[in-house]
Amino acid sequence: MPTALFINGPNLNLLGKRDPSQYGSRTLAQIEADVVEKGKALGLEVACFQSNHEGAIIDFLQGRASKAKGVIINPGALTHYGISLRDALADVRLPIIEVHLSNIYAREEWRHRSVTAPVVTGQISGLGWRGYLAALDVLAALIKEGR
Amino acid sequence: MPTALFINGPNLNLLGKRDPSQYGSRTLAQIEADVVEKGKALGLEVACFQSNHEGAIIDFLQGRASKAKGVIINPGALTHYGISLRDALADVRLPIIEVHLSNIYAREEWRHRSVTAPVVTGQISGLGWRGYLAALDVLAALIKEGR
Amino acid sequence: MPTALFINGPNLNLLGKRDPSQYGSRTLAQIEADVVEKGKALGLEVACFQSNHEGAIIDFLQGRASKAKGVIINPGALTHYGISLRDALADVRLPIIEVHLSNIYAREEWRHRSVTAPVVTGQISGLGWRGYLAALDVLAALIKEGR
Amino acid sequence: MPTALFINGPNLNLLGKRDPSQYGSRTLAQIEADVVEKGKALGLEVACFQSNHEGAIIDFLQGRASKAKGVIINPGALTHYGISLRDALADVRLPIIEVHLSNIYAREEWRHRSVTAPVVTGQISGLGWRGYLAALDVLAALIKEGR
Amino acid sequence: MPTALFINGPNLNLLGKRDPSQYGSRTLAQIEADVVEKGKALGLEVACFQSNHEGAIIDFLQGRASKAKGVIINPGALTHYGISLRDALADVRLPIIEVHLSNIYAREEWRHRSVTAPVVTGQISGLGWRGYLAALDVLAALIKEGR
Amino acid sequence: MPTALFINGPNLNLLGKRDPSQYGSRTLAQIEADVVEKGKALGLEVACFQSNHEGAIIDFLQGRASKAKGVIINPGALTHYGISLRDALADVRLPIIEVHLSNIYAREEWRHRSVTAPVVTGQISGLGWRGYLAALDVLAALIKEGR
Amino acid sequence: MPTALFINGPNLNLLGKRDPSQYGSRTLAQIEADVVEKGKALGLEVACFQSNHEGAIIDFLQGRASKAKGVIINPGALTHYGISLRDALADVRLPIIEVHLSNIYAREEWRHRSVTAPVVTGQISGLGWRGYLAALDVLAALIKEGR
Amino acid sequence: MPTALFINGPNLNLLGKRDPSQYGSRTLAQIEADVVEKGKALGLEVACFQSNHEGAIIDFLQGRASKAKGVIINPGALTHYGISLRDALADVRLPIIEVHLSNIYAREEWRHRSVTAPVVTGQISGLGWRGYLAALDVLAALIKEGR
Amino acid sequence: MPTALFINGPNLNLLGKRDPSQYGSRTLAQIEADVVEKGKALGLEVACFQSNHEGAIIDFLQGRASKAKGVIINPGALTHYGISLRDALADVRLPIIEVHLSNIYAREEWRHRSVTAPVVTGQISGLGWRGYLAALDVLAALIKEGR
Amino acid sequence: MPTALFINGPNLNLLGKRDPSQYGSRTLAQIEADVVEKGKALGLEVACFQSNHEGAIIDFLQGRASKAKGVIINPGALTHYGISLRDALADVRLPIIEVHLSNIYAREEWRHRSVTAPVVTGQISGLGWRGYLAALDVLAALIKEGR
Amino acid sequence: MPTALFINGPNLNLLGKRDPSQYGSRTLAQIEADVVEKGKALGLEVACFQSNHEGAIIDFLQGRASKAKGVIINPGALTHYGISLRDALADVRLPIIEVHLSNIYAREEWRHRSVTAPVVTGQISGLGWRGYLAALDVLAALIKEGR
Amino acid sequence: MPTALFINGPNLNLLGKRDPSQYGSRTLAQIEADVVEKGKALGLEVACFQSNHEGAIIDFLQGRASKAKGVIINPGALTHYGISLRDALADVRLPIIEVHLSNIYAREEWRHRSVTAPVVTGQISGLGWRGYLAALDVLAALIKEGR
Repeated sequence: MPTALFINGPNLNLLGKRDPSQYGSRTLAQIEADVVEKGKALGLEVACFQSNHEGAIIDFLQGRASKAKGVIINPGALTHYGISLRDALADVRLPIIEVHLSNIYAREEWRHRSVTAPVVTGQISGLGWRGYLAALDVLAALIKEGR
Repeated sequence: MPTALFINGPNLNLLGKRDPSQYGSRTLAQIEADVVEKGKALGLEVACFQSNHEGAIIDFLQGRASKAKGVIINPGALTHYGISLRDALADVRLPIIEVHLSNIYAREEWRHRSVTAPVVTGQISGLGWRGYLAALDVLAALIKEGR
Repeated sequence: MPTALFINGPNLNLLGKRDPSQYGSRTLAQIEADVVEKGKALGLEVACFQSNHEGAIIDFLQGRASKAKGVIINPGALTHYGISLRDALADVRLPIIEVHLSNIYAREEWRHRSVTAPVVTGQISGLGWRGYLAALDVLAALIKEGR
Repeated sequence: MPTALFINGPNLNLLGKRDPSQYGSRTLAQIEADVVEKGKALGLEVACFQSNHEGAIIDFLQGRASKAKGVIINPGALTHYGISLRDALADVRLPIIEVHLSNIYAREEWRHRSVTAPVVTGQISGLGWRGYLAALDVLAALIKEGR
Repeated sequence: MPTALFINGPNLNLLGKRDPSQYGSRTLAQIEADVVEKGKALGLEVACFQSNHEGAIIDFLQGRASKAKGVIINPGALTHYGISLRDALADVRLPIIEVHLSNIYAREEWRHRSVTAPVVTGQISGLGWRGYLAALDVLAALIKEGR
Repeated sequence: MPTALFINGPNLNLLGKRDPSQYGSRTLAQIEADVVEKGKALGLEVACFQSNHEGAIIDFLQGRASKAKGVIINPGALTHYGISLRDALADVRLPIIEVHLSNIYAREEWRHRSVTAPVVTGQISGLGWRGYLAALDVLAALIKEGR
Repeated sequence: MPTALFINGPNLNLLGKRDPSQYGSRTLAQIEADVVEKGKALGLEVACFQSNHEGAIIDFLQGRASKAKGVIINPGALTHYGISLRDALADVRLPIIEVHLSNIYAREEWRHRSVTAPVVTGQISGLGWRGYLAALDVLAALIKEGR
Repeated sequence: MPTALFINGPNLNLLGKRDPSQYGSRTLAQIEADVVEKGKALGLEVACFQSNHEGAIIDFLQGRASKAKGVIINPGALTHYGISLRDALADVRLPIIEVHLSNIYAREEWRHRSVTAPVVTGQISGLGWRGYLAALDVLAALIKEGR
Repeated sequence: MPTALFINGPNLNLLGKRDPSQYGSRTLAQIEADVVEKGKALGLEVACFQSNHEGAIIDFLQGRASKAKGVIINPGALTHYGISLRDALADVRLPIIEVHLSNIYAREEWRHRSVTAPVVTGQISGLGWRGYLAALDVLAALIKEGR
Repeated sequence: MPTALFINGPNLNLLGKRDPSQYGSRTLAQIEADVVEKGKALGLEVACFQSNHEGAIIDFLQGRASKAKGVIINPGALTHYGISLRDALADVRLPIIEVHLSNIYAREEWRHRSVTAPVVTGQISGLGWRGYLAALDVLAALIKEGR
Repeated sequence: MPTALFINGPNLNLLGKRDPSQYGSRTLAQIEADVVEKGKALGLEVACFQSNHEGAIIDFLQGRASKAKGVIINPGALTHYGISLRDALADVRLPIIEVHLSNIYAREEWRHRSVTAPVVTGQISGLGWRGYLAALDVLAALIKEGR
Repeated sequence: MPTALFINGPNLNLLGKRDPSQYGSRTLAQIEADVVEKGKALGLEVACFQSNHEGAIIDFLQGRASKAKGVIINPGALTHYGISLRDALADVRLPIIEVHLSNIYAREEWRHRSVTAPVVTGQISGLGWRGYLAALDVLAALIKEGR
């Protein structure tokens, strides 16, 4: 069964506790469980990872990419300045979907800019935890097509 | 059966003919048919509309919004300057998902800016025609929740 | 009796329905009636027009300007990008007063910039529907003076 | 009889002498007389003040605001940099109408920016001395409504 | 006989009436007649179109492009913001020459920026109605070469 | 007993009356009394001054600096444009602490820029009236050290 | 006894060794000892932490915030780009005082911008190690008030 | 027979050798011959000049302008920074047509800015060597009209 | 004997005391005496004025301009933001020479911008007190010519 | 034998695998071996370090700098935002040479800006792995000179 | 007798012929004669030079500087982009006065920026040919003082 | 023996005399001799050229490039604005190494931008005369490889 990586960046371990009006009330553990389960239904093994360290996310990506078929990533605030992460994503030659829980374009001006967006396949923002599941649906289809 | 509006802006009537490396090979008619069909499966009537005229899209939105429950819109190039459309979307007090076929963040700098994004619920870009279907999935869920 | 044109741009047909905290609770029909009535009292016939199409507003201006003596216009969001409308206004060699219901200078940064303001006689903003009537008062005086 | 403050900023004491093509040929004294007279007709006592000193205008505003019901102000060039005046106007919790004799949007780029506009009720520009009278009409109505 | 499209954007229907010091004294009808006639001499049928509606110009382009061999277009003020028109021009895979009657680089700063110029073959500006004829000369040559 | 100057700029005479959510409910008189009292405890005579006139603050600074040992100043809105005050502060060769009651970095973008900050010893913002007392503590220490 | 977190970011472990003209000659250990001691006097337990890793600082904050009552942080260079740290600070719903040893507004232009300042209670800069003690004084007062 | 100056700036002596995909395969000598010949047919003597030295081009212009009736110039890269050349062109009180072989608006952002364009009569770009001939046609007409 | 106004702005009363490396060691009184004396030699009465208040300088200018023939002004820091002073200078229809003691173009970036320079006849900077005398020489010549 | 530090930042552990057209086909291990060997020939012990963690690189630098004589560093993407690393490099008072394998000035605009370059001795870019060896040559000479 | 260099840049050889409303009606030869004559009176030999070639001006400066005591230069349009000239001026360790005939601050925005001003002693602009003589007066004094 | 061009731009003829703290104390002649000698050792004939004229450097490049195998160039200040030189370098289809003696990234902001860097193979800055020799080493290797 092909593997998809599901990566969440800084502060996302606090989901459910962190400002629920902005990010919703589900915890990261619940969301990861949903994504793993849906992955199984779609024929994908999902490997979950969260870290507050940009370097640790890069280490994880480098270590796992050669055996994975796709990536779903919410880079958290690294979205806006994590250029090392960007380069690591660009090196991974797989379909990647960037997800943001909140609509980053309805927030502060500087949150509109994503340094990772130019190197991913696509982006979903503002749809809450459903955005992760929608991403998984599309990723599974892209992997099946061998894209 | 609740209604969702499915709106495509300027030049999207040429889908399938227009630069396929950028926008894919499916025609708008095929995509609309898929969306309508999936809408039925999800319990939604989908009303499709395309125009090259910003004014006509606003007329359509104003005329249909009071009886609709949600909107999926690909504003085409109006994304970047159609402030009248933006205001019309902001007036519609419904869940709205903005969709772009290509990853607008991997194209020219000025395509990174969406004047409509700040007033919609969420945005999906870069996932091709699948983006429309993913949007419909989430929209149906939001409508069911009465959000 | 000399004629004044009274033009409202995109989304202003929804006045009274659209965000009342921002735009007030009077409908466009009510406002137009007030303006026509006050026009009569001031010796002016007022011709009203509203459209969501920039092109239609230009068509109206071109068709009616040669027989009119002045213009009151609320360009709506075209204020910020409708350069074709700007050029049409500049071609009309009449007194023109630009009116905004809300104080555009107290809203988003980009709403502070009006592309039409440099080619009109004057601008009134933030005074609600009373702004239209104040504009008519001044316009009538300018027309009487033959300015 | 409620009081309205009528304030003119730097260099406006030279009205009628100063570049008449830009600012008209009426002196400030004549304009103040007109405004006072019209104020009476509308049931308002108008207190006039002019100074070339930003500090003096703030002193006047602070000293008189608690007993006034509204303000008409032409800040002159302080419009573009008088942030202390801006803060003083924001502290006065009354309807305020900012007036400019010339169309500041048809002049140098830097005159387009008003630091006071975001904290006033509304703005009138480009309508000459008539702008003051139009402002008084609207201000009287707002005061009557107790806004 | 191959066809060339000759398109004029907003406000250009007023040529000859509109500010003659800037745009010359010939009417659009006269210019179109000259272009059609010269077209015949060069072996080209010229189809003329003018509209104040961006959407209508896009409709015309989409409807006629498949049977045309080249385009001459003066987008008027759409030059500076009509990104939908830009995308329509980019989709047309024909030689296109953009013409401006006045030297847009000798006018306001913002008129220096053309959003359409990057997707056309070439641009002529500042040469008045002669610019259209010069464009036709070159277009005919490019069509002959099958470029 | 060495003297410290305690200067408050435009509109700060209204402390306690002015927007209390932003600036707190203590009056300037109360705060000045606290600062004078604490000054005594620290062996410093504190000379208080407030003005809405930039020129008057400069006059005060120039007149008193040669006999003072340090300065605490809240320039109010002059913070953002009072370059004359900046130069006067730079000429005073004493330790200077700039204090802001509110966190100017959590307010409008343009309030983030202080023209005086580069010429003072240090800055305290966002700590309300306590900021003044904290400044006095540090200033007394710096003066004792003869810095 | 309530706990306050005292956090120092990258390179601050070198205090006393690092450019003393800019940062003073006291070591971080000495400063931490002073802060802990003063904390005791004020009835606060102070937990000290330093790291060169943004992720480690976020881990520390997340792990300790729920049992702490306030934070004093010198983010070092993370001040200017550590948006993940900013989000972590914003999630901590406690009084936070940001301290800089040097006057960051008297240094390079880009050091004037703090990405953390908008989410903290207040900021102290330029007062050397005394800034930490002044911060502790104010923080203790805020905690006592239960703010 | 009136004289027209035909000037080519830096690196254009390499035409035909230099990047042919961008600039075409004709040499400058061939193009100059064509322009001279067509000039004769139009009743114009054409004086050709090329230099890699901005100063030399200015010397040539100054020396020949008083006896010439018009100028065609391709300033090469001086287009973007040769302000001395701009001033020399502005001093020549003749019709001037600026020509670029490639479409400078389809190249790097900084090539879009021409410092010479504001002082010439018109500009032709993107039409290859044909642009020179089209320029000559129009220039001859302007000279005949005595413009 | 015609009168010339000699005006010095904020902080210039401290000349000779203020940073001598930047501004020289002569006091304002000495410089004023030199200028008055040289004025006599050139047949000009020189009226001196210095103030730290922008408003007071405007008052002086307005009060004295109608009987003066020319102005020498060093606006001090008002150079960079005193737009009210700028407008007052523009209203005075006399030759005006702006003088700066130091080379403002060799100092901070923001000191390079003078808001007054566009409305004066000429500017002298960086030549110390000699700049005032050089200005007087030229001003006397301009007045003699009746310019 | 004096020691030189040889540091490679994020993603450079993938050299040889990562986009070879951009970065060449040699692995980091091979390059490190070459550098160590050449170091020996030049009388330098080379200590190699690579990490994807900014904090770890700073830890390494701080721990080893006091016993080293020089540094060669390729900060990878940290070049563009790693201000903490910049400050750490500035604290190290040794000759430092920054190396980039690709020509960062021929890539995306934002890669042209290096936050570390202003605090190093010199920079080499675009010369591939040879850049490291060239850096070592120069570094050895600088160390010998005791610079 | 000490020597002063008097240098005029591109297009200034046309003085008297070039746009007299901007630059006056005296020829360069007349002005040079005046300057030489006044130089003699002041005890200075003046060596005049004009060129349209930036390189030639640098050659002249380098060749003559070691035997000269001061420089008066009007760089013409090189003022705005001639960075090589700037560096040459900075290398000359002499008093230098930059002169502009017109008030460059009252012209196009981009003429306000002088790349040479930061490396000269002072600047005179807007005073016509008198500016050269005023410069010579001051330069002679500076040379006498041995500055 | 293959030839390499060694080119130095404006003011570099003064090396050794020009600000030695910035550029070192070796003369250009000494450096050229070193480079020629090392060239011989590496099997390369080195042709040296220096000029203060941008045009002359382009002439030299154009005249010699077809017989050369590589270029080492220090464009001096042309680095920042010599776009004609840039285009000439881009036309030369050889390996090119740009060298700066000082670290241009540690100097004025505008010296950080190199218009030539995007079209060369690589860049070395801040390493003094050693930078030239390091460049030669690498260039020789690239030539040997036939790159």
